[in-house]
Amino acid sequence: MRSAFDHVLERRFHHFGWSRHHPPCLTIAPGDVVEVHVQDTSGGEITPQTSLADIGQIDRSRFTPLTGPIFIDGAEPGDAIKVTFLGFSASGWGWSLITQRYGILADQFPEPFLKIWSYDPSLKTPIDYAGKARIPPRPFPGIIGLARNTDETLPSLPPYPTGGNLDIKDLTEGTELYLPVEVHGGLLSLGDTHVAQGHGELAGTALESPIDVAVRVDLVKDARLAGPCFSMRGPLNPHMREGGYHATCGISSDLTDAARSATAQMIDLLGKLHGLSAIDAYLLCSLCGDLIINEMVNKPMHVVSLYFPRTVLE
Amino acid sequence: MRSAFDHVLERRFHHFGWSRHHPPCLTIAPGDVVEVHVQDTSGGEITPQTSLADIGQIDRSRFTPLTGPIFIDGAEPGDAIKVTFLGFSASGWGWSLITQRYGILADQFPEPFLKIWSYDPSLKTPIDYAGKARIPPRPFPGIIGLARNTDETLPSLPPYPTGGNLDIKDLTEGTELYLPVEVHGGLLSLGDTHVAQGHGELAGTALESPIDVAVRVDLVKDARLAGPCFSMRGPLNPHMREGGYHATCGISSDLTDAARSATAQMIDLLGKLHGLSAIDAYLLCSLCGDLIINEMVNKPMHVVSLYFPRTVLE
Repeated sequence: MRSAFDHVLERRFHHFGWSRHHPPCLTIAPGDVVEVHVQDTSGGEITPQTSLADIGQIDRSRFTPLTGPIFIDGAEPGDAIKVTFLGFSASGWGWSLITQRYGILADQFPEPFLKIWSYDPSLKTPIDYAGKARIPPRPFPGIIGLARNTDETLPSLPPYPTGGNLDIKDLTEGTELYLPVEVHGGLLSLGDTHVAQGHGELAGTALESPIDVAVRVDLVKDARLAGPCFSMRGPLNPHMREGGYHATCGISSDLTDAARSATAQMIDLLGKLHGLSAIDAYLLCSLCGDLIINEMVNKPMHVVSLYFPRTVLE
Repeated sequence: MRSAFDHVLERRFHHFGWSRHHPPCLTIAPGDVVEVHVQDTSGGEITPQTSLADIGQIDRSRFTPLTGPIFIDGAEPGDAIKVTFLGFSASGWGWSLITQRYGILADQFPEPFLKIWSYDPSLKTPIDYAGKARIPPRPFPGIIGLARNTDETLPSLPPYPTGGNLDIKDLTEGTELYLPVEVHGGLLSLGDTHVAQGHGELAGTALESPIDVAVRVDLVKDARLAGPCFSMRGPLNPHMREGGYHATCGISSDLTDAARSATAQMIDLLGKLHGLSAIDAYLLCSLCGDLIINEMVNKPMHVVSLYFPRTVLE
């Protein structure tokens, strides 16, 4: 299979944060296919043997390693890098962590929660959650971006106009992503690979897992994009075609409050319908539930609904 | 066909705003099937003959008539009304209006814009937009709700915990909606029927059209819901299965700003790809584009993408 790639970029070639001063570890021509090996976003601090008791001791300075950067020949400011996602080789293990640092209901879940996952690396079978749920896998990189035109090193947590921590679950096989180039060579890096995530990633982590990502990298001259955009060929949630959805509606003048309300109501509903504990429901909403803005024009109130795919629990 | 309904509620039985003091125009038993005839949300002020020059003279006090209210036998505060959407009989005409009153980019579109639509009332063919686009229809009531437990008459523009102007496009055939009862008999009303709308209704109107809505109304005792919720049996956007999506990504610490940015970028993109004018693209985004929250946990920046179905333009 390796012969299908023009380049393989191992995960030891990584950096932290975004900077135009990070030296490229690979130079490619437009049209090249690269397999980018991405470490889980804990940078190896969480392993299949980690328990909740270890979480206090993990070194967060090693979090969010980004494999790259890749210098694309001919890329100049004003151009766009087009990344086509060709395939994913998954590791078969992963983790999810809920803490008070992240998550839209962090105030309601003060106790940390760690789940170590084991899954079929062929990604052909739903992922079992302790006999309670079956999660269809759909891998993608949570982080994919180019260097920004700044002298400072920018943190990797927020996304930027050049991409980064976008956490867009549709950046998966067949999708074409366009990123605006701000610096000579573009400097493309990937990180934070996920096997499953809902739109919103509402509890702060997805099913985090080391994955090798195969991409073709093309150059679009003078594209003049204001931000990332992408094209996908299939329907929404092709991995959730059967069974339909339950949805709860959050209504507020503030979209964040509306999303929080929809999530709290879904946790209640999944408890009533399926006997899930609140923390199990919160985690599954982060991995499988989609936050959609139904309306934002009926002044002064917006509606955000959380759509939970029934196939996961039925 | 009329024999399939236990009751038919004509559109002359309508009221304005939400109040527990509106006298019911129909009393039904749980399980009854009702065909509710809904006027377009202009209350007849806009007709197939209306032109843009007439818009300044329309009487907005006649806007948003709500057919109902329907008293459901046995419904008491704490219960839920379950509404199952059985079918829609469409009129074949409709309108869309963009003004500075509504719309997330109202500041960028100062000139009013009116479109009068003509469409196949069987809803079996895509709706033509001046030879530029083909919109798959999917009818639903933008407004469906119960009376609130207040003495004042509440305006019909915002949605409430008892429902109302939810503008959830998935409230269509096969979906089951649950609404919390606050007053004796529930007092169910419907309005603001749409033939096509994207998640967000971002320009402020959908494809507004008079439609007869057939629903079965059931009673769930002691449901204790905090807000509306619904269950749907099919996939997301079953009417948009082919062709995939273009998506633009808005990145901001504020979800509203992120949605505005994604919309502005999509208007640019549709102009570049398909030669659409800005106002055409804005209107089509309101009717067909979906606002989805990709992530809201990567402090301090959120990602909201606007997904535009390619089948509409390709």
